[in-house]
Amino acid sequence: MLFYWLNLIGIFFFTISGSLAARDKKHYHDYFGVFFTGFLTAIGGGTLRDMMLGAYPISWLSDRNILISIIIAFGFTLIFKKYIVKLRRTLFLFDTVGVGIYTILGVQKSLELGVNPFAAVILGLVSAVFGGVIRDTLLNEIPLIFAKEIYATACIAGAVLYTTMLYFKIEANIAASVCMSIIIIIRIIAVKYKLALPKFDAGNETID
Amino acid sequence: MLFYWLNLIGIFFFTISGSLAARDKKHYHDYFGVFFTGFLTAIGGGTLRDMMLGAYPISWLSDRNILISIIIAFGFTLIFKKYIVKLRRTLFLFDTVGVGIYTILGVQKSLELGVNPFAAVILGLVSAVFGGVIRDTLLNEIPLIFAKEIYATACIAGAVLYTTMLYFKIEANIAASVCMSIIIIIRIIAVKYKLALPKFDAGNETID
Amino acid sequence: MLFYWLNLIGIFFFTISGSLAARDKKHYHDYFGVFFTGFLTAIGGGTLRDMMLGAYPISWLSDRNILISIIIAFGFTLIFKKYIVKLRRTLFLFDTVGVGIYTILGVQKSLELGVNPFAAVILGLVSAVFGGVIRDTLLNEIPLIFAKEIYATACIAGAVLYTTMLYFKIEANIAASVCMSIIIIIRIIAVKYKLALPKFDAGNETID
Repeated sequence: MLFYWLNLIGIFFFTISGSLAARDKKHYHDYFGVFFTGFLTAIGGGTLRDMMLGAYPISWLSDRNILISIIIAFGFTLIFKKYIVKLRRTLFLFDTVGVGIYTILGVQKSLELGVNPFAAVILGLVSAVFGGVIRDTLLNEIPLIFAKEIYATACIAGAVLYTTMLYFKIEANIAASVCMSIIIIIRIIAVKYKLALPKFDAGNETID
Repeated sequence: MLFYWLNLIGIFFFTISGSLAARDKKHYHDYFGVFFTGFLTAIGGGTLRDMMLGAYPISWLSDRNILISIIIAFGFTLIFKKYIVKLRRTLFLFDTVGVGIYTILGVQKSLELGVNPFAAVILGLVSAVFGGVIRDTLLNEIPLIFAKEIYATACIAGAVLYTTMLYFKIEANIAASVCMSIIIIIRIIAVKYKLALPKFDAGNETID
Repeated sequence: MLFYWLNLIGIFFFTISGSLAARDKKHYHDYFGVFFTGFLTAIGGGTLRDMMLGAYPISWLSDRNILISIIIAFGFTLIFKKYIVKLRRTLFLFDTVGVGIYTILGVQKSLELGVNPFAAVILGLVSAVFGGVIRDTLLNEIPLIFAKEIYATACIAGAVLYTTMLYFKIEANIAASVCMSIIIIIRIIAVKYKLALPKFDAGNETID
């Protein structure tokens, strides 16, 4: 039940993040383009995960609350668009919470459906980041997760820890809470201190 | 039966539209590239819809008439390539008919499979436009539907009206014919009078 | 059993090919980006094929050897990155072997699941090349298969021959071996002699 609400909250903020990204290309996108980019950002990761798992029906096709969240988020973006830029730090926080939730939800759902732990970690990552990959590809940019500060790395760390904790019979709710927190904390620290994985093949490969 | 033939006609013209789009990048694409772009444009929207619905088998994998339509359309493009540019207005008309048909077919199929009406409208839109999104993304351009004249908007209007008419127990064939016509008329008027949704965040937001 | 091992070998070399492609954009991608690009290149084609077929579970979600192959290949790329460029010719050979294997495996799996031969040929092609399409799209480039030397053409030739041989009751293992060899040989000859399909609409349309 908590997960259900957290999911809707994640959808809400992913929609705003996608809408704002499209809005940055302001000489190009009309209202529909901004809405549709927000929509795809919000449902992209979970939809791809469910299609790979063959887990039908896909959640937003059976639960209309997900679409209502997206519409509310888009209305919110329209109304507060002049102020929302100042909220970027707040948005970052909630986006990070969303990524944390989606990673663990994705791992959990995959394990329930009998996927091996290695693959479950990857599907958790896909759930969390692929909405953003679709968003960036549609905006004709190289996806941010390929270059940004510790992002996918934080998800993978949390997902691996989660599967490890379940392996040692730690209760799922506790494991989930711990691992979501860890993903969020790693991400906040990485952004605050501008930590990043070394560029592949760059001269200074000492950070890793 | 009418729908079945309309579907094949839609496939035929979507293939030509995709092939012509690839042909515009004439210093890059070889014959296969042009054919494959046409193919993906034609089957992209319906395939993604069916994959999201878990509606197997996907139509072009079980009905070879769809592939035959695509091959005929590609042959048609090759033979008439010098004259077809002059047919752009004709093509626009048939493309629009295709988009109208696909929107309503997509909504109908989704509702039959128990999807909620909100989601069915989105899947109708996906059926109609995602072939074009794939085409533009592969050609390394920002998808046209994000910026063009009233396009997705026309589909959404027709799809919403269709679900509303079904809700009020209007016979499906009649509702479908009415709504397809409305999508097509909106689209023609929009292009003729250069109507467009306002750009998001642009100065003149008075049209909406 | 032979196919199973060939599949893992194909995965191994596709991962290296994807990693190296991402590495070429060396000022952009971090270690994760390079790994993830390799991963998507390796599993992309087969995953899309299985999603289109509704063939669940998708192989890398049920067989962890596939992920192990990818991780080993990435480690191999890291360790030998300074020397691997000199191996490009070797890599081309194995990539070509992979493409040959994937084409025939894709056709075979599709036919087993009751797909018509036309569509099976296309799914064989999708299996073989879509990992590369995803790779190039994510790297913000027009997919190579749309322009390169005889590539998709070789796959299609092999796939058509394979379905034809099966139609004439030739034993599957023999047909597979012959057709894989033909794909590989066509590809090697095409690259060696710089054969290419004519550009669509280019002046010199005499080669075809």
